[in-house]
Amino acid sequence: MEPLPDPPESWRLAIIGSGAVGCYYGAKLARAGSRVSFLMRSDLAHVRRHGLDIRSHLGDFHLPAVHAFGSTDDMGPADVVIITLKTTANPALETLLPPLLHPGTRILTLQNGLGNEEFLAARWGADRVLGGVCFTCINRTAPGRVEHTAQGALALGSLTPASHATAAAMAHLFERAGVSCRHADDVTAVRWRKLVWNIPFNGLAIAAGGIDTQRILDDPALATLASRLMEEVIAAAGLLGYPQPDGLVSDQIAATRTMTAYRPSSMIDFVEGREVETEAIWGEPLRRALAAGADMPRLTMLCALIRSLVAQRRAAL
Amino acid sequence: MEPLPDPPESWRLAIIGSGAVGCYYGAKLARAGSRVSFLMRSDLAHVRRHGLDIRSHLGDFHLPAVHAFGSTDDMGPADVVIITLKTTANPALETLLPPLLHPGTRILTLQNGLGNEEFLAARWGADRVLGGVCFTCINRTAPGRVEHTAQGALALGSLTPASHATAAAMAHLFERAGVSCRHADDVTAVRWRKLVWNIPFNGLAIAAGGIDTQRILDDPALATLASRLMEEVIAAAGLLGYPQPDGLVSDQIAATRTMTAYRPSSMIDFVEGREVETEAIWGEPLRRALAAGADMPRLTMLCALIRSLVAQRRAAL
Repeated sequence: MEPLPDPPESWRLAIIGSGAVGCYYGAKLARAGSRVSFLMRSDLAHVRRHGLDIRSHLGDFHLPAVHAFGSTDDMGPADVVIITLKTTANPALETLLPPLLHPGTRILTLQNGLGNEEFLAARWGADRVLGGVCFTCINRTAPGRVEHTAQGALALGSLTPASHATAAAMAHLFERAGVSCRHADDVTAVRWRKLVWNIPFNGLAIAAGGIDTQRILDDPALATLASRLMEEVIAAAGLLGYPQPDGLVSDQIAATRTMTAYRPSSMIDFVEGREVETEAIWGEPLRRALAAGADMPRLTMLCALIRSLVAQRRAAL
Repeated sequence: MEPLPDPPESWRLAIIGSGAVGCYYGAKLARAGSRVSFLMRSDLAHVRRHGLDIRSHLGDFHLPAVHAFGSTDDMGPADVVIITLKTTANPALETLLPPLLHPGTRILTLQNGLGNEEFLAARWGADRVLGGVCFTCINRTAPGRVEHTAQGALALGSLTPASHATAAAMAHLFERAGVSCRHADDVTAVRWRKLVWNIPFNGLAIAAGGIDTQRILDDPALATLASRLMEEVIAAAGLLGYPQPDGLVSDQIAATRTMTAYRPSSMIDFVEGREVETEAIWGEPLRRALAAGADMPRLTMLCALIRSLVAQRRAAL
């Protein structure tokens, strides 16, 4: 892979998918001086006129001038493409990405769940691909407005040594923008770490009737079920070579209590009848766990229920 | 207990709870010549004027003159009170039943799940209590109208020897009315047998999004989950002293295919925001299974989800 030009502060960054995650991290990078373009759909006209409005527990800010586009054909080549699309839209990347790529372009996925780095590597080569994992409670609450209520850190790394330096430089750009960002030697290990939380909490928020994290924890049977699901995911991660730290279940439960009534984005997608990232968050982890010989009675059940619930919900709306 | 007068054909029967089950079995008994009164709520005026309309795969019929009442105070004493109320309404029996009881009155519960005979025995004495289990696909589809789409048999027995003869005579009355009815030495064993079906199918019909039995069986993951849930229930029943026959899971799946697209009444209750018999069908069996030391990961999860879903559904409507 060609190296990207120095300094990283001059890189052209393209945010593909301007939901809560894309707008938040893109706005942080832009405010710190990076050259950031955003691909937008529904919010395009609003953001061009009014900019981005970030309500964050780390500090509110407004980004008045946003380079927002309705098509990647208009954006020009980028040095780093940051993918924040919902994973269910991944097939669209086959047409969205080519106009953005020059020989040295790196592609960083900040998407949920498992399978995204592999999707990108299969199409544009593993050397280009960076993976990042967001630990954040964040929702888009209105056109051009994001509410960031807790956490906010990133972990990122490259798939191959060819992009190791780019990963380190991107981590630097995020840190410069006020985003806590650590380098991950193995992004998949970090993805399993995040799934220990997302699988039970996003899942039960859907399967228990469109409820927030507080209601899950306030119901002793659901709180216990969340712990049992975490234990299944931790055991599977261990079998796959991603051992998780001791005490993770109780730490996660305690951390979730600090989020108060967080509505996981998957649950909002479900309730509003939009696509849910079922395969990335539950289906693919379950397939890998079962292939490794893990016993996953609860995740198997949760995944079957979510697939059916999502299909019924979308049919009803 | 006092014996009831001979012949049983002269007995005064009172149906308490005129949903699908009460109307169907009561109408069958009345058509065969038994003296049947019905306690009705919503359908009272309609049934007094138009009678009961039974659409049954065993033969349609209309019962034009129905002894329907709005209060048990108006019904007079009964020889056998047949309880077909939803189990969630059991507390109301404390005031509904006393006007119907004479010293020899027997009380037959045809309700779902576990705990009903015990509820009656604790209040009116075990010697009075008969338990019956309906194996039937039946829905109330309009005022005074019942659709009976498959099966229809009963099993019934007495809690103590004091009502053994009454149980045998009631079985005779049902048989005379064209209802296949066998005597059960242990009603609780039969209840577990029915729960092997109700727990997974009523449960998944709710938890997978308000779907019918056909959709459960057409989804390989849900069909497998139904089998795993049946295995949990069968194992628990065995630990509690109610061993189930070999091959029951595959027999039940095969029998369910013959029902085509049956909507379990619990699921209809759920979808329409009415009370769901959560404790009788899932909660009490789970409590007894766990007390016997059974491992019930899927039923534990299903019960927690249904409790939450029902609470959310009722809050939303």
